[in-house]
Amino acid sequence: MTTAASNDISDEPTRLERLVSKIFSTNIETPTVRPTPNASATLLAGVPAQDDCAVYALTGEQELVVGSDYVRGPKFRLYEYGLLSDYDLGYYLAAANISDVAAMGARPIGLLTVVRYPPDMTDSQFASVLEGIRDACTRFQTVTVGGDIGGAERLILSATALGVCRRGGSLRRQGARAGDVLCLTGPTGVAGAAMRYFRGGARSTAIDVEFRQTLLDSWKRPVARVREGILLGEFGSVTACQDTSDGLKAAVTSIAAASGVGLVIDEHDLPISPAVTAVTEFLELDRTPMIMGDSVDFQLLFTIPERDLERLRKAFENQGLCCHPIGQATRDRAVSLRTRQGDLTPLPGDAWRHMPDVLTGPQRAVHPG
Amino acid sequence: MTTAASNDISDEPTRLERLVSKIFSTNIETPTVRPTPNASATLLAGVPAQDDCAVYALTGEQELVVGSDYVRGPKFRLYEYGLLSDYDLGYYLAAANISDVAAMGARPIGLLTVVRYPPDMTDSQFASVLEGIRDACTRFQTVTVGGDIGGAERLILSATALGVCRRGGSLRRQGARAGDVLCLTGPTGVAGAAMRYFRGGARSTAIDVEFRQTLLDSWKRPVARVREGILLGEFGSVTACQDTSDGLKAAVTSIAAASGVGLVIDEHDLPISPAVTAVTEFLELDRTPMIMGDSVDFQLLFTIPERDLERLRKAFENQGLCCHPIGQATRDRAVSLRTRQGDLTPLPGDAWRHMPDVLTGPQRAVHPG
Repeated sequence: MTTAASNDISDEPTRLERLVSKIFSTNIETPTVRPTPNASATLLAGVPAQDDCAVYALTGEQELVVGSDYVRGPKFRLYEYGLLSDYDLGYYLAAANISDVAAMGARPIGLLTVVRYPPDMTDSQFASVLEGIRDACTRFQTVTVGGDIGGAERLILSATALGVCRRGGSLRRQGARAGDVLCLTGPTGVAGAAMRYFRGGARSTAIDVEFRQTLLDSWKRPVARVREGILLGEFGSVTACQDTSDGLKAAVTSIAAASGVGLVIDEHDLPISPAVTAVTEFLELDRTPMIMGDSVDFQLLFTIPERDLERLRKAFENQGLCCHPIGQATRDRAVSLRTRQGDLTPLPGDAWRHMPDVLTGPQRAVHPG
Repeated sequence: MTTAASNDISDEPTRLERLVSKIFSTNIETPTVRPTPNASATLLAGVPAQDDCAVYALTGEQELVVGSDYVRGPKFRLYEYGLLSDYDLGYYLAAANISDVAAMGARPIGLLTVVRYPPDMTDSQFASVLEGIRDACTRFQTVTVGGDIGGAERLILSATALGVCRRGGSLRRQGARAGDVLCLTGPTGVAGAAMRYFRGGARSTAIDVEFRQTLLDSWKRPVARVREGILLGEFGSVTACQDTSDGLKAAVTSIAAASGVGLVIDEHDLPISPAVTAVTEFLELDRTPMIMGDSVDFQLLFTIPERDLERLRKAFENQGLCCHPIGQATRDRAVSLRTRQGDLTPLPGDAWRHMPDVLTGPQRAVHPG
């Protein structure tokens, strides 16, 4: 009601914390719905949990996880530069949403997509978006089951992914305990490096063609870590998990805060993509901030008791998957980096703290969702 | 690949039929997902069904229904005229999505909302949108469980509603049989009449204040027919159901086509809102086309065997709900109106056939989602 208050424009994490969690926490009155005396759906994790997905316990010993993500799509810089196609945007929309289900340890059971298109979008362009969605669903072992289409002033893309896991199998951000090992499924920083490298358009020859392809593919064919997520959900002792779609630093910070622990990352143990090294060398940038920062890579970051690490590594290896221990949870709640020199420093890299484009300028607009 | 084809710009129903259903029908390969040997989720109705929601059979003798709707929100004419607030848009978003679950005969278990906001939207404006969402959820016996927020160039609103019902209880568009009675839960045409009455801004005194309030409330406080939907889902012999969010004519046409029957509406039996009569008299318009046409009213339209009609009427009456028989399903597949004079004519009213705004002009942009 005061003028000062009504002129406030907070950033996204602040709104999540101060407004979304507060306003949507007041109406959770009926967490269990019973369509018959013997069947029920019980909300286990809603908005205040701030996980990637909501979680329901269902009769029949399973849990349902469901999450929604909007993607900027035609506002992606690489799309504006002509490096991404309509097909790629559809593919990205599906992969980004399926990643949320994977990060909760669930098997995807379907995707609903909202595709609103501008007046001048032709049937074949529209079909390309849908084909990208379809092919990503197929790639990640699921199907498109519904959604909404219609007109809008520009292409608007949003989706909802659903998945199921065994009762008690869903992975949350909370749950990491001091002493747990922090692991990552693969290198981060690739999508952010792509943003930096292609800024202003394609640089055709500055780095090797295979690295350029790796950079482009981080946007054209993002990988939802479905197999890894299912393995982690079934493994039994994973204590926390999240994808790195807000960047590695944000994911580390978020698991630490939700779990009430500290996390120390060993710089030496961070998996590194040669494509990121090529970009940071070419642009004369520090590499670790690029790896930690606001890069949308869809890797899974998780914690596990140290005694289970070897068994988990073997399980990953048996399926041809990767698992990199990169740090440890501590009682002391600080989040920090142990550098190659052995010093403890704050985590480098841009924190995830998006603002609407106008307020943040081009450098902050790398985030898709 | 041909120039002619790639320049085609079809309308929404055509894209649904020719592109969406086709592209998304090819990848339904694994309709059953089993997170454990004893738990499963099986897709019963996906994109090709073209119902309001997808339907899954879950172990534990229940079904999950889930649907997504984008709403135009700030592009609503009544919002542009200053007659709707940010709170109203949030309320509408939730009600429109919950209506889809109600129309499938399910109890809502939660809503995920995508709220992307422009750079100049203040915290209090943003909070108003969320409060509208929250209050609609409370009104319709459910909760907001997740979603996505962040920046965009304008306010973008989309949501996904989830619900559960007993095994076999979900109501589809297909299933009506010749001889079934067609029923409606309340008068239609109100939202469309509001569009016509308030065109260009508020007309403060042309019709009675109570009628003006009814018109405004069709946009400010739309009613998702949750109690009616639950009753219909549990009743046991409802053969088809759909909400009238694309207008009554569209809903009638859609149930007829999906079920392979004809439907004859008795003009004499159509429930009529006095507010609609006031508008059509004031503007010297025919009333039946207004009642049948592209008006977003969220009533439920359903079919039931004639022998069960009295029992259903009593069940509605016992709960203080309304049920109007308005016609009958026929073997002959024609969809028609029996006028007050006894003639059979094609259904009047604008068919639902939206196009992107630019192509259709202001008169066709009344539809929200």
